[in-house]
Amino acid sequence: MSASPDSTTLPRTTETQVNRYKWLQRDSRADLYAILDVALVAHVGFVRDGGKPVVIPMGYARVGDAILMHGSTGAGLNRSAKRGIDLVATVTIMDGLVFAQSLFDSTLNYRCAMIFGTADPVPNAEKEVAIKAISDRLMPGRWAEVRPPSARELAATYVLRLPLDTASVKVRAGGPDDTAADGIWTGHIPIHSTIGAPVPQNGVTAPVPASVPGTVEQFQTSFGGAAPTL
Amino acid sequence: MSASPDSTTLPRTTETQVNRYKWLQRDSRADLYAILDVALVAHVGFVRDGGKPVVIPMGYARVGDAILMHGSTGAGLNRSAKRGIDLVATVTIMDGLVFAQSLFDSTLNYRCAMIFGTADPVPNAEKEVAIKAISDRLMPGRWAEVRPPSARELAATYVLRLPLDTASVKVRAGGPDDTAADGIWTGHIPIHSTIGAPVPQNGVTAPVPASVPGTVEQFQTSFGGAAPTL
Repeated sequence: MSASPDSTTLPRTTETQVNRYKWLQRDSRADLYAILDVALVAHVGFVRDGGKPVVIPMGYARVGDAILMHGSTGAGLNRSAKRGIDLVATVTIMDGLVFAQSLFDSTLNYRCAMIFGTADPVPNAEKEVAIKAISDRLMPGRWAEVRPPSARELAATYVLRLPLDTASVKVRAGGPDDTAADGIWTGHIPIHSTIGAPVPQNGVTAPVPASVPGTVEQFQTSFGGAAPTL
Repeated sequence: MSASPDSTTLPRTTETQVNRYKWLQRDSRADLYAILDVALVAHVGFVRDGGKPVVIPMGYARVGDAILMHGSTGAGLNRSAKRGIDLVATVTIMDGLVFAQSLFDSTLNYRCAMIFGTADPVPNAEKEVAIKAISDRLMPGRWAEVRPPSARELAATYVLRLPLDTASVKVRAGGPDDTAADGIWTGHIPIHSTIGAPVPQNGVTAPVPASVPGTVEQFQTSFGGAAPTL
């Protein structure tokens, strides 16, 4: 593994080097963070006992130069990860469909980050801070509106920390690569995520607290409505 | 592996049995297809030479009781898969955020399908049909509007076929599980995908062909705007 030349550049390693459509690779740490701070779920891959691959979706939050992941502990990840586990976390934002002159050149627009490394369980003493960070990311402001986690809840909660040392970013945006030709429509169709209106649970009488419009506003802003500028 | 009791039920195996929030598991093949026919990208995990996990996003299309996957052949998947490769394809649709009375019970809404198996490269003689199936799914109608793939393009294209024999479906929808309590707002905030207006490439003079509004309409319908009914 080669060292990162400086803190704003991602290192190129045998793992992170993009082999196909190499020109779509981005080397800026800012590009990595821009993807991680928009998506909600990482697809986390690891090797199960017996050598077979597993991929599970996990909610996460970036905190500085690491992500904290929290999600289904099924599929053996919690058991395997007691002492750190080799994994990859892939985060993909789908941005649209590209209609080129041929099907061969037609493609998808996307932003994709892959993080390779060893994830360690967050120690008990740091778990509450980690859970608050994930909560602040997914439901900003909610922490102050509800009771704090109990000791029992903290004990039952499992958070993994994956450093962002070895990561790869690939981004495709905009229309086809070829210049336009006569007689054929070419272009792209954007796809983006939208956050909807909050739906109160049946029987709720309390007014809507600040975290709810705050969450909607945060994701409206980060999801955007147009092709991303990275 | 236990045999599927009938063709409409997914088999429970050690791989497909959900271990956490077991009650969210769905056993109907229709639920599996409903997820696969909405999402555009599968996160495909496999074990690289050296035993480390890799997860790459791949565009796919379901055709009957298999998915055909086509995407970046980086990360060694194409080289590894010459004779079939053990992999898992996970497809997740994020449906929203659930605000419960505690952070511990707060969660995400999602539809998730995991498919375990051995993927085989589609043989040369069947590649054009496979590529057409993927094209018909992602850009319905486009096949008839552009030239067919050349022999050279087909040779350079790589499609994997993964049967849907061993698959697991987990779905969370709606508000919190607890009943509402006095004095605290609880509910959920939906998230969904939206397809935008087509963006013609600079210099395009041809009129918009039928595949473009057709694609928009297909994804508008399948993405929906409300919580899914599965």
